Amino acid sequence: MSNLRMTVAYEGTNYAGFQRQANTGLTIQAFLEEGIARITGESVKLAAAGRTDAGVHARGQVISFHSNSALEPGTLQRALNSSLPPDILVLQTAEVAASFHARYSVKSKTYSYRIYNDRLRPLFQRPFVYHFRHALDAETMRVAALLLPGKKDFRAFQATGSPVKTTIRTIYNCRVEQDGPEIRLIVNADGFLYHMVRNIAGTLIMAGNGRLSLAGFQQVLEGGDRRAAGPTAPAQGLCLEEVFY
Amino acid sequence: MSNLRMTVAYEGTNYAGFQRQANTGLTIQAFLEEGIARITGESVKLAAAGRTDAGVHARGQVISFHSNSALEPGTLQRALNSSLPPDILVLQTAEVAASFHARYSVKSKTYSYRIYNDRLRPLFQRPFVYHFRHALDAETMRVAALLLPGKKDFRAFQATGSPVKTTIRTIYNCRVEQDGPEIRLIVNADGFLYHMVRNIAGTLIMAGNGRLSLAGFQQVLEGGDRRAAGPTAPAQGLCLEEVFY
Repeated sequence: MSNLRMTVAYEGTNYAGFQRQANTGLTIQAFLEEGIARITGESVKLAAAGRTDAGVHARGQVISFHSNSALEPGTLQRALNSSLPPDILVLQTAEVAASFHARYSVKSKTYSYRIYNDRLRPLFQRPFVYHFRHALDAETMRVAALLLPGKKDFRAFQATGSPVKTTIRTIYNCRVEQDGPEIRLIVNADGFLYHMVRNIAGTLIMAGNGRLSLAGFQQVLEGGDRRAAGPTAPAQGLCLEEVFY
Repeated sequence: MSNLRMTVAYEGTNYAGFQRQANTGLTIQAFLEEGIARITGESVKLAAAGRTDAGVHARGQVISFHSNSALEPGTLQRALNSSLPPDILVLQTAEVAASFHARYSVKSKTYSYRIYNDRLRPLFQRPFVYHFRHALDAETMRVAALLLPGKKDFRAFQATGSPVKTTIRTIYNCRVEQDGPEIRLIVNADGFLYHMVRNIAGTLIMAGNGRLSLAGFQQVLEGGDRRAAGPTAPAQGLCLEEVFY
């Protein structure tokens, strides 16, 4: 029995999210598990680093599963990529120690959130960005983002009604970059509350748009009141960039 | 009566090409003309710098048409962009001299051709690149491309059976760039024969793949025999980048 680790990229546009669920639409997990089953003849249940929501993309999702297949990892990957839809792709496959688990072994994950800030709508980037037409001051957003790193209670940025033991997480790195009409938020943390990056993005947009001062942003973070923070930015701007173990 | 010039970008994937034709599928021209008609009440016949084929993209197509509409160019553009499908976008609109014609006034056009050279298929770039799995030497392609500029007879790179008066064109600039797994051909010329960029791309791929020497590439160009050149590279890698007047 070997333990396999795969790095997977996908465009989330046409999926109901990563995780296989009853009574939902297509999921990335279902395509991966069914592809593996067809090739190896084994029914696998895979673990994933992050259960991305409907419409969310990934450049570096990581999955792991156990297999008795005699296929070389590279052979399995090629066969799987031939069977997967064009918007899902396995980038890397390796045999790893039996103790490795794609979700429980995670040290940190990096997500990006892309905002397309222009009066004209995006064209080529449209599946991957949130189009925000109104003025945004990227410099204000950049400075506000500097208030986030550290081991803190991020409950102001958690979707209401999420059942977790603790809302304390450690953000190791959080930065805002501007590239032409695009403003990108990049967050690396040991874990994320539900909708945390999208709620941070929505609140940074309020700051960039002049509806929240830096002091106000700090108060939102410290006050821990979800209602004081900005709206949840749409799923399509979010991408799971990389997972660290 | 004013003469309007618009710069238009589109993803060509879902279209039967730019030019409106009987008995074909959706065309970019039909969406633009019908959008303008709906907004201005005028039936316009627009001119375009380049009649891109089915599946070919544009970042800087230029169109022109005459209108009696009292709408400001910016207002017309906003209304048109609201009515167009998400894969067509007007980037710029200006009133120009009556003598300007999007096609006849062209001084030169720049096309790009993107090759994705990796054993793994492309994911996010897949609508915009030609996936070539086998080894390519970008340096050989770069040097071969340097043989092309100048006022020359390019009939070796013309689709067979194209009815044109002369197959002499001037390539002002032709270069090959590598960027990770991507090899990009960029060609600026005063005009293009039918399928010229795609045939040049197909022949450069032969050179990069070791099936044609630099001397052989030179012979293809000088011999003027279409059958000696490489195959026509697929439409999806091609993009009309910019038009100069």
